Amino acid sequence: MKLAVVGTGLMGASVGLAAKRAGVERVSGYDADGATLEVAAERGALDESASSVDEAVADADLAVVAVPVAQLAAQVRTVLDAAAEGATVTDVGSTKQWAVGLGERFVGGHPVCGREAHGPAHASADLFEGATWFLTPGAATDPDRYRLVHGFVLSLGAAPVAIDPQAHDRLVALTSHLPHALANVLVNQAGAGRIDGHDPLAAAGGSLRDMTRVAGANPRIWVDIFLDNAAPLGEALAEHRRRIEQLEQALAARDAGSLARWIAEASGNRRRMLAEAYPGDPGALQQVTVHVPDRPGVLAGITQALGAERINIEDFELRHFSPERGGVLTILVSGESEAQRAADLLEAQGYGVSVSPVLA
Amino acid sequence: MKLAVVGTGLMGASVGLAAKRAGVERVSGYDADGATLEVAAERGALDESASSVDEAVADADLAVVAVPVAQLAAQVRTVLDAAAEGATVTDVGSTKQWAVGLGERFVGGHPVCGREAHGPAHASADLFEGATWFLTPGAATDPDRYRLVHGFVLSLGAAPVAIDPQAHDRLVALTSHLPHALANVLVNQAGAGRIDGHDPLAAAGGSLRDMTRVAGANPRIWVDIFLDNAAPLGEALAEHRRRIEQLEQALAARDAGSLARWIAEASGNRRRMLAEAYPGDPGALQQVTVHVPDRPGVLAGITQALGAERINIEDFELRHFSPERGGVLTILVSGESEAQRAADLLEAQGYGVSVSPVLA
Repeated sequence: MKLAVVGTGLMGASVGLAAKRAGVERVSGYDADGATLEVAAERGALDESASSVDEAVADADLAVVAVPVAQLAAQVRTVLDAAAEGATVTDVGSTKQWAVGLGERFVGGHPVCGREAHGPAHASADLFEGATWFLTPGAATDPDRYRLVHGFVLSLGAAPVAIDPQAHDRLVALTSHLPHALANVLVNQAGAGRIDGHDPLAAAGGSLRDMTRVAGANPRIWVDIFLDNAAPLGEALAEHRRRIEQLEQALAARDAGSLARWIAEASGNRRRMLAEAYPGDPGALQQVTVHVPDRPGVLAGITQALGAERINIEDFELRHFSPERGGVLTILVSGESEAQRAADLLEAQGYGVSVSPVLA
Repeated sequence: MKLAVVGTGLMGASVGLAAKRAGVERVSGYDADGATLEVAAERGALDESASSVDEAVADADLAVVAVPVAQLAAQVRTVLDAAAEGATVTDVGSTKQWAVGLGERFVGGHPVCGREAHGPAHASADLFEGATWFLTPGAATDPDRYRLVHGFVLSLGAAPVAIDPQAHDRLVALTSHLPHALANVLVNQAGAGRIDGHDPLAAAGGSLRDMTRVAGANPRIWVDIFLDNAAPLGEALAEHRRRIEQLEQALAARDAGSLARWIAEASGNRRRMLAEAYPGDPGALQQVTVHVPDRPGVLAGITQALGAERINIEDFELRHFSPERGGVLTILVSGESEAQRAADLLEAQGYGVSVSPVLA
């Protein structure tokens, strides 16, 4: 199998690295930016740096187009023209509707692996490990070519999921573009001015910090993503406004019953979401919280003690609020007895520990 | 100094424990629920379990009212009536506007320490360590009494911040109640139905999970908090809708310039928010990302290696996506050279590592 990668930034170079690791015989690459191509080759993502798209795809069995969203549609067409009839073409763009009607040789793809870095210097063969990789075969797509791309995606460590292109774009509008957009809206609202001399951003608690973690992400990438999926994102935003308005009405009417049902619905939905990440029983998840000082060795001491007792940790998070105040360590474990073992262990080390279920 | 705690749940019992640790001579407590009172006493939060509010506050210098939001205003009035003239009264409620006009003996308080647990069994003397503790003295508040409460809060390890009661409620609407409300709205929107057979919640990426972490929190507590701060929260929600509508207009007009400015503004606001948590230089923060297998000892091995090299970790987060796929470890360190040292160390352990700046 010979692979061509067109666009050798973070995604393209990671495809090259992961493909090499999976045993792909030869990877040739092209990037309009010479430096990007050079770094990708230096990282070992490419066997051959081509000087044009034509050269890169000349004898490829599979060509992966990994250029920025704004250039994607044009570049995919260029590659379809340049590659041999036998070559299959796919891409890694975050929307798929634009590619409808590209014919039997094209299979749209979208690996879901949020990574804030960009450029081939940050590329990694592990990038797609365990990630969902949407594939959007059209009615015209040749089944053998679909199987080729499906197998290739599996070989990179990802989990291929077939979906209709339009449905794909509505799905990512809801699960990725809407959260990103709202993070920006929220942090700009909180940062819009002082309240009685207090900067709301300085008073931000954990919830505001959690909810704005993806705010302000690379404008060069995100403006294009938002515009590229403008219609489905616009619908999701309008629906979000309608839901907020309903909440305002419930608050104005002091409708405690509907607020309680709304929170219970959210609790059920969160449980369903967590079930994906913690297949055992999300209801059994316990949160062990410890306030720890900002001191060298604290983290190693805690993880060693937990490891020695073979406590199975689901999530482990240390947030430093400040050097003076130290931070809060939150450990997720499954089952009350496991949580109690973790708490006892940490209490024996002199920490004050609190245990609570993740889902109320 | 003699302290009375009225309401001995998570907050009241934690106040008792922290006060005992700070050397308060005697803590008496009362709770309408006998079991709650008993557990608080067993945990060592109280020296004396009173059988009535009157008995609890009889000879107190300071009374802390820590009952649920819905009972707070009435209970504070009861305590003001029951306590001696010389006694000062404060509370730990999450809104403050209701307490305007309570006279010279009352100083409103609100410790900001998100803790999802409830009940005295989860109480901890560390709960307020480093937390902002808003104080809302009114025009009538006796300055000596304000100083008493201020000193008490400091002795519990918290950072007292004086603020006007109305401004306080608008501030927490923006920094806490709005994020909580939006988390519920978002998870319910994402969970409302399938798209072409796919459950959006099952396809949730990191951004959606981050943004809905506080969704579905205890309805018994949050319905009251939302209703208690309904007007400021309603205003924040309406303002949020206006901002979303502006975004929809920019998308519909395909206004790339305004989208780019909007993201840049979000980036600046996020930087300001992070400056609070990382006083050094948030621009220097680097994110080191590693894909790790779900295997015992991995975490201990990594933290030990980082500790041995004295790499100063700001944040440390391991998210398990699933037992099969393992998880992603994200380490925040300050400075590129420190990040490179961490990356080299982890690469030497055989991990694929990626480094990127936290702020673009």
